[in-house]
Amino acid sequence: MDYQPYQASMLALGQAPSVIRETFEYGNRRAKEIGRENVFDYSLGNPSVPAPESVHDSIRRMMDEVDSVQLHGYTSAIGAEGTRQAVADHINSLFGTGVSASDIYMTCGAAASLTVTLHAILCPGDSCMTFAPFFPEYRVFVEAAGAKLTVVPADPDKFQMNLTAFEQLITPETKAVIINTPNNPTGVVYTEETLKAFCDILRAKEAEYGHTIYLIADEPYRELVYDDNTKVPYLPNLYDDTFVCYSYSKSLSLPGERIGYIVVSPKMKDSRLVYAAVCGSGRALGFVCAPSLAQRVVAENISATSDLSIYRRNRDLLYKELTSYGYHCIYPDGAFYLWVQALEPDANAFCQKARDFELLIVPSDSFGCEGYVRIAYCVTTEMIERSLPAFKKLAEAYGKV
Amino acid sequence: MDYQPYQASMLALGQAPSVIRETFEYGNRRAKEIGRENVFDYSLGNPSVPAPESVHDSIRRMMDEVDSVQLHGYTSAIGAEGTRQAVADHINSLFGTGVSASDIYMTCGAAASLTVTLHAILCPGDSCMTFAPFFPEYRVFVEAAGAKLTVVPADPDKFQMNLTAFEQLITPETKAVIINTPNNPTGVVYTEETLKAFCDILRAKEAEYGHTIYLIADEPYRELVYDDNTKVPYLPNLYDDTFVCYSYSKSLSLPGERIGYIVVSPKMKDSRLVYAAVCGSGRALGFVCAPSLAQRVVAENISATSDLSIYRRNRDLLYKELTSYGYHCIYPDGAFYLWVQALEPDANAFCQKARDFELLIVPSDSFGCEGYVRIAYCVTTEMIERSLPAFKKLAEAYGKV
Repeated sequence: MDYQPYQASMLALGQAPSVIRETFEYGNRRAKEIGRENVFDYSLGNPSVPAPESVHDSIRRMMDEVDSVQLHGYTSAIGAEGTRQAVADHINSLFGTGVSASDIYMTCGAAASLTVTLHAILCPGDSCMTFAPFFPEYRVFVEAAGAKLTVVPADPDKFQMNLTAFEQLITPETKAVIINTPNNPTGVVYTEETLKAFCDILRAKEAEYGHTIYLIADEPYRELVYDDNTKVPYLPNLYDDTFVCYSYSKSLSLPGERIGYIVVSPKMKDSRLVYAAVCGSGRALGFVCAPSLAQRVVAENISATSDLSIYRRNRDLLYKELTSYGYHCIYPDGAFYLWVQALEPDANAFCQKARDFELLIVPSDSFGCEGYVRIAYCVTTEMIERSLPAFKKLAEAYGKV
Repeated sequence: MDYQPYQASMLALGQAPSVIRETFEYGNRRAKEIGRENVFDYSLGNPSVPAPESVHDSIRRMMDEVDSVQLHGYTSAIGAEGTRQAVADHINSLFGTGVSASDIYMTCGAAASLTVTLHAILCPGDSCMTFAPFFPEYRVFVEAAGAKLTVVPADPDKFQMNLTAFEQLITPETKAVIINTPNNPTGVVYTEETLKAFCDILRAKEAEYGHTIYLIADEPYRELVYDDNTKVPYLPNLYDDTFVCYSYSKSLSLPGERIGYIVVSPKMKDSRLVYAAVCGSGRALGFVCAPSLAQRVVAENISATSDLSIYRRNRDLLYKELTSYGYHCIYPDGAFYLWVQALEPDANAFCQKARDFELLIVPSDSFGCEGYVRIAYCVTTEMIERSLPAFKKLAEAYGKV
């Protein structure tokens, strides 16, 4: 083989343009020109509410009361015993599961939860499926684990799961399926009815193919639901061969601290062997252990959540106003995204047009679905209020209102 | 291909017995039986000194003064600008280099520094070399990146680099060489003379093969040297195509917080492309960003180090006493390891024998070198003092003293 000075796939990833980042950087440049208050940046999915004050109290207390060597020392690779026990107890109390501390593997956040899981189970020739629209890094993570991502086209009606297309696309090579509910980018929560039908298909296909098909539930937005009657079913209760990949990025507003976990459901076939493969994968990828201070913070704040009411207020305001201007918005049950039909077929052109009104929104193409835009409303309510006339003018430019 | 329910290599890694961990766990069981004070556990390379008090002061101040969303938010994937600038300035002030913030990539610790670097450059068919004895995870990391580890046999005289063997083993498939000085497990610091001769060979081989050979300097122990006249040469000043993989685990005693960096030397051929491949690799492996609070801690404590004098005291005591009992010890310039010839040919049998005296030490085989033991003296000086009679009795059992 010819000498290559670097991994071509890694170089391509490192150089890949990101529409989201490009939009964000355009916003920063524009803010310098016309003032931050005149730019309406809805590009990034960064939590905009502070961590619970109890988190900061915990950290203050640790500085004074915990021995430094203990506090900042390595934990076990799978995570500190006390943290894993707190996580398991919390999951069991919420969902009536029978998870134990030894089923939990603490990680450096949601992305690590996914890459560690995928490297543990995916082999060359395997396919991993997901449902459009989807978080674009799924493709990066699956391909880095040596497998192929198969995308199920969107259900353009309610953006639930397109199960007809799923049944047509699943094959004996399908090793795993990643689902994300509440969903980035649509904000939709998959209903229990949808999920039960989906799990029935999975079980039937496991029987037909004679092997395990893993379900990977990517759940960073689990707590971000806004209506009392919206339930986010817990997948290990619906399907045995399930991993839950969780992060405290959103629930505790700690995205930069890189703390999350994997649940290897104890009901999974060969779950202890799979858990061992997860340990091997975390080791091979160089994770060593999840950050030790953050692990203690999680154990001490297991039931806490940030004040998420601002997201609900933002959702209600934006959904109500945008629909009144003639936009077709998918009703968002959760997460902090509004999924809106572009007012012309090309969502990229529509997002460029929106910039004329200083609205920075992200076209849907990078999420594997054309003709929509993602509006990340994890911003201040004041910014939303200031931006409403711009959304109205944008609609008027397309003959709406 | 037949269906495999998990990645066989990851399962094997997850199930692999670790002599170090097994020894540590034996020690915990034994401590319950006879009391912690009667067990002399020298198995683990865990820092035993606290973080500098300035680190805790920084964290306290951040709790009170920094906005939570800023403090715990995502940083750029490559690391916060301020942190990277502080790291670059510090490196330049110490070593007279011309590194800029854009040559620094912040990581989740030394293991991540290595895996991200290796995945950026290694391609199938490549060989990565290292010098025995070596940190066993090098093999795990290189193989997970799809390449082969080639081990240069030890120089059994002074445990410097065996350059004769290196010249015989290097081939056109050699893409990179990992070196570790101060060394785990020997505690030896490679001399400037050795390193210059080594870099001359690398340059000659680059010319002969017509391609880059990367040098990866794994430097978690850089600050842990104990004699004023011991210098740890900075590799980017000796060889252009160098990565420095650094961690604050030891210098700031923050091993569990997972914070370190990669320097992609700006003098490296195609350094901007290689840096982009590093970015792609970090993204593909799921690192997202280094922990945000720890990045701020580093920026505010860039010149601080933990009180490392206890390690020097331990080294002096242990080296003096053990040699007086008849042990042959390699003089350790740095790190916190003493490398001692086993008193029988089979180091594993010797370590079992040592357990009769409650001494828990690690045989050298897992470091790619037979007939020695590693004594990790990152322990209390009191434990060393209590253990000295046991070391003496062990020597007597082999007819020494």
